[in-house]
Parts: sequence; structure tokens; C-alpha cells
Amino acid sequence: MKMLINVAETVVADALRGMAAAHPELVVVAENRVIVRRDAPVEGKVALLSGGGSGHEPLHGGFVGPGMLDAACPGEVFTSPVPDQMVRAAAAVDSGSGVLFIVKNYTGDVLNFQMAAELAEDEGVQVASVLVNDDVAVTDSTFTAGRRGTGATLFVEKIAGAAADEGMPLERVEALARQVVDSSRSFGVALSACTTPAKGSPTFDLPSGELELGVGIHGEPGRERRAMMTSREIADFTVDAILEDLDPRLPVLVLVNGMGSTPLLELYGFNAEVRRVLDERGVAVARTLVGNYVTSLDMAGCSVTLCQVDGELLRLWDAPVQTPALRWGR
Amino acid sequence: MKMLINVAETVVADALRGMAAAHPELVVVAENRVIVRRDAPVEGKVALLSGGGSGHEPLHGGFVGPGMLDAACPGEVFTSPVPDQMVRAAAAVDSGSGVLFIVKNYTGDVLNFQMAAELAEDEGVQVASVLVNDDVAVTDSTFTAGRRGTGATLFVEKIAGAAADEGMPLERVEALARQVVDSSRSFGVALSACTTPAKGSPTFDLPSGELELGVGIHGEPGRERRAMMTSREIADFTVDAILEDLDPRLPVLVLVNGMGSTPLLELYGFNAEVRRVLDERGVAVARTLVGNYVTSLDMAGCSVTLCQVDGELLRLWDAPVQTPALRWGR
Repeated sequence: MKMLINVAETVVADALRGMAAAHPELVVVAENRVIVRRDAPVEGKVALLSGGGSGHEPLHGGFVGPGMLDAACPGEVFTSPVPDQMVRAAAAVDSGSGVLFIVKNYTGDVLNFQMAAELAEDEGVQVASVLVNDDVAVTDSTFTAGRRGTGATLFVEKIAGAAADEGMPLERVEALARQVVDSSRSFGVALSACTTPAKGSPTFDLPSGELELGVGIHGEPGRERRAMMTSREIADFTVDAILEDLDPRLPVLVLVNGMGSTPLLELYGFNAEVRRVLDERGVAVARTLVGNYVTSLDMAGCSVTLCQVDGELLRLWDAPVQTPALRWGR
Repeated sequence: MKMLINVAETVVADALRGMAAAHPELVVVAENRVIVRRDAPVEGKVALLSGGGSGHEPLHGGFVGPGMLDAACPGEVFTSPVPDQMVRAAAAVDSGSGVLFIVKNYTGDVLNFQMAAELAEDEGVQVASVLVNDDVAVTDSTFTAGRRGTGATLFVEKIAGAAADEGMPLERVEALARQVVDSSRSFGVALSACTTPAKGSPTFDLPSGELELGVGIHGEPGRERRAMMTSREIADFTVDAILEDLDPRLPVLVLVNGMGSTPLLELYGFNAEVRRVLDERGVAVARTLVGNYVTSLDMAGCSVTLCQVDGELLRLWDAPVQTPALRWGR
């Protein structure tokens, strides 16, 4: 497998140097593996911190900036960051108003963020944590007890980020983040496996002519394999899997997310089918985002995330945001 | 090759329906294959129109909106749109201030835009055209007489779009677009071929362990094939190929562009190497954009575009833009 890299060992450090060069509005400390808003700490504002294994870009580093995250801690590819990174980042962004940790539900991330929360509190930083576990595909997976955290992370980071931006206190920002988690569900599909730099070959075998329904963002097994399906059939299966678990009474935010190598042309076509199913099921759509946001390196495939939103969540979603990967309204 | 589609015949129409669903701020007429700003025609403003074969998304439809294009005409995958599309689009966006056609240098596009310009002028629309031909890799290629048009298209559309937004007259917008073309050079590299929906298999054979230096955005042959190179070596080769043809006395805009399936993690790492070479060659960087903007479906690889900018071009680059794929400052 050919990759645009030097050697596997320096992939994350190289990417951080490239991010620093491209985004002078961020402080990227390659040695400490921390990406921080240049204007942090922002006086009187709750800070938001997230992180996780690399390989899911633009998540999380691409979501650092006004209206979203204050800091992100990237781990090695598909490997949790360590508590030391998180403690440094928390200290860098805390203005005294507290820090919300946004944690995807993978065992390594959960343990490391928990330890970091304790260490940061020892240093006088008030920490709250919210666990994102939106993937309805399976319960208990290769790296996870319970449900995996995937696309809803973007909704949590954006909406909680807007709440913090408005000056809401930590308990309120945390409650809103939890409301977004409770209101969100995801389901992913792989047409091909991804290849990590360290391994250099696909992380799992997916026979030509088959797809994996319910795949995780590290290539974890899903619900089943089937013979290749059309965009229309995949949309039916995916949306129905979500609606089995979520019965939206309110309009939804829709994320049609690419896993990395599926062309935007195909993702937009898939969005047409997702909208058709939602229309048929009587689910109203408030906003739609189509693109590669929570990726799995070069995996082909897609995921759908729905988040039902009341007026306040929608207002916070629409609020201004200024990050490398998501920006509007300012 | 597995794709997230229904059938090859409806790929473009399906994508346009999905775009319409995701972007209520645009008018997407799937039957006519035209994507237009909802508020067009904008009184007193020169209109910008571009288009080309599909498969390069977000180019061009993702660049329609305030501060950039007024309309885009997508053709079939890797196939020029037809004059009828362009004439309809020109009529829809012309406020009486004239329309600038932005044309990538491929024989089909050039002929069709030329015919459209004549037809539109017959209908009383004042048209100027600018040809983008920034790819230094080869002269005369599979679909092109002269140099191919690639990444500089984004710079032309953004900067000319800002000029039109400021109310500059057609001749001035055209002159600035031409200045951007004259100041821009690109070079692309493929690590894998892309697969069109119609063909269903890779458009060319690239042996494992080799890369194509100077590839076109439809997989057209480049300068040479070599054994796989590191990110560092590719950056050296690519930037030097550009600097052989452009000797920047002014700071440059840098586009580190993904061809479709190269992970953002790798593109950022590559940007670190591009910046290193530019530093070594004494070229100052004004702004950097990293991501998938001018793609070749699912091709793995990247391209670099440099555009040297004076104070006015840089001011226009920084001006507000509000499109699906590029937005800042408002």
C-alpha cells in the first residue's frame, strides 16, 4: 500500500508540523501533541477539550477554534492520547471556568481521559466529562465496552462549543453536550478496509463484491456482510438501523460522512437517498452536512448521523464557528 | 471496484439532488445541470461562471456562493458540460454587468465554452473568458492542447469572485483572473489511478510500488514513473518542478491538494515537507490551504499549486467567501 509519508513512526508528528504551517491561528505543539486556540485561555469561558487516536482527520484537530474546541490531543494512529497530553492541554485552556472533556467511547480513551481528569483536578482545574456513544451498529466491540463513539462527536463539539462561546457555565455546557449525545445516533458502512501506516496493509479483509454494514471507524466488525448494495439500499438499511433506536419527534441534523476515500460526488448522491428515506419515514431535516469529517484513513464508505434538535440546539448549531474544517457565520 | 452509487448513468443527477437537499442557499436544477446562487442575478455585479466534467468535487459546484462563483455547470464524469447548460446559467446570473467564464484548458471545455460565449452574446449577455492552464507537468496531453488547468482554478475563482463582489467592472475582473493564471503553477502526483463509474475499473495501470509524477486530474500521463518515493522526496520534486517555471519574487498562496483518497493526515504531513522546500528555496508563504479541493474521484495522490500574490491579490484572497467548500470571513 502506497502512502504519502516519510516513515510510519513520524506520521503524526509530520502532520502536526504541517498543520502548524497551514494554521497560524492555532498553536500546534508537535512535541507535546497538543493543538490549542491561539487566544486560549479565553477569559470567563468554559474550555472544551477533546482528542483521540489520529487517522480520523479533520476530527479533532480540525475542530479547534472559536465556537468549537479550545484544544485537541491527537494520539498515535488509532491509539488513545495519553493523560499527560490532556493535562497540559487542560492547563493551557482553562481560564478558571472549568474544562469539558469530550470523550469518544473507546476503552483506552475513557481510561486515559478519566486519569487526566483526576490529575487536572489535583492541579485545581474543574473538569466535567461527556462520553459520546452514538453508534447503534453493535454493543461491545474490539476496542469498546458499550456503543462506539463516532459522528455525533462533531455535533457535540459544535453545539457545546457554541454554548461555551455564549458564556454558559460548565454544568450547562455539560448538560447540553449530554443532550446532544442522547439525541444522536450513527451507523457506518465500509466498502473497503483502511490501511494504517504501521501495518501497511488493510486492517481487515473485505472480499471484493461485499460490504460491511455497521463498521467502526477503526475497521471494527459491524453487524453483517452482504453482497454489494446500491446507494439506495444502503441508505434504507442505514437510516432504518438508526430509526429503530431513535424516534425523532423533532427535526434532525443530518451528517452524511465519508470514511476517507469515497468521492464527494458519491457522498452527495448518497445524501439524496438518505433524504428520500427520511422523507418517507416522516422525519423532518433541519440541516445537512455532507463531507469527510470523521474518517478512517483511506477507508471507502460512509456513515450517517442523525441528531434531533430543539430550538436551542439548532440555534447553537447555527452559531458562528471558525475552525480549519468547519466554519461559518463570522 | 465498489462504489456508493445506484447506477453509473445517474451518478451526476443523483449528486445534484443530494446537493440541492444539503444546500438550500443554492438553486440546483438537476434537469438542466446548473448550480446557481439563490440570490442571482446580483444587481450591479459581474457574474462568474465555471464548469467542467464531474468527478473533481468540490470543484466547481462547491465553489458557488457569495464571494466566488455565481453558477457552475457540471458535465458528466470527466466530460465537458454542453453549451446549452452554460447559456442557461449565464442568462440566470447576468445582471447586465457581464459574465466571466472561467475555463480549464481541456479541448472539450474550451470548444463548448467558446460556443456558449457566442450564443450568450447573441442573447445580449456580455461575456469575457479566462483560460486556466497552470499544470507545468506536460505540454499537450490526452485531452489538452497546451498545459492542463488544475488547482489554480480555485485561486482564479476565489480572487476574481472577490473582485466581482467589490463591484469591479468586467474588464478589471477579467484582468485580475488572468493575473492569477499568469502567477500560478501546479504539479500533481498519483499513487493510484482513479475509477470512473462508467468504466468501473482503474483508468490506468500503475504498478504497485510506483508513482506517476506529473499526473493529470483525469489520470492523464505525467512526466515519468518512478519507484515509490517518500513525502520528502515528492515535495522536493514537485516544488522544484514548479519553481523551474515560476520564480516568485512575492509571497505565494500554497494549495496542498488531495486527489481524493489520500488521508488528510498524510496531506498535512506533506504540507510540512512542501513548506520545508519553500523555506529552503527562499520562497515566502502568504497563506496555505490543505485539503481535497480539485479531486480525481478516488485517486490517491496530491498536487501542489503556488500562486504569487501582490497586496491586491492577497486582499482579494482574504475577502469573505460563503460557499459549500470554501468559507471564511463573514
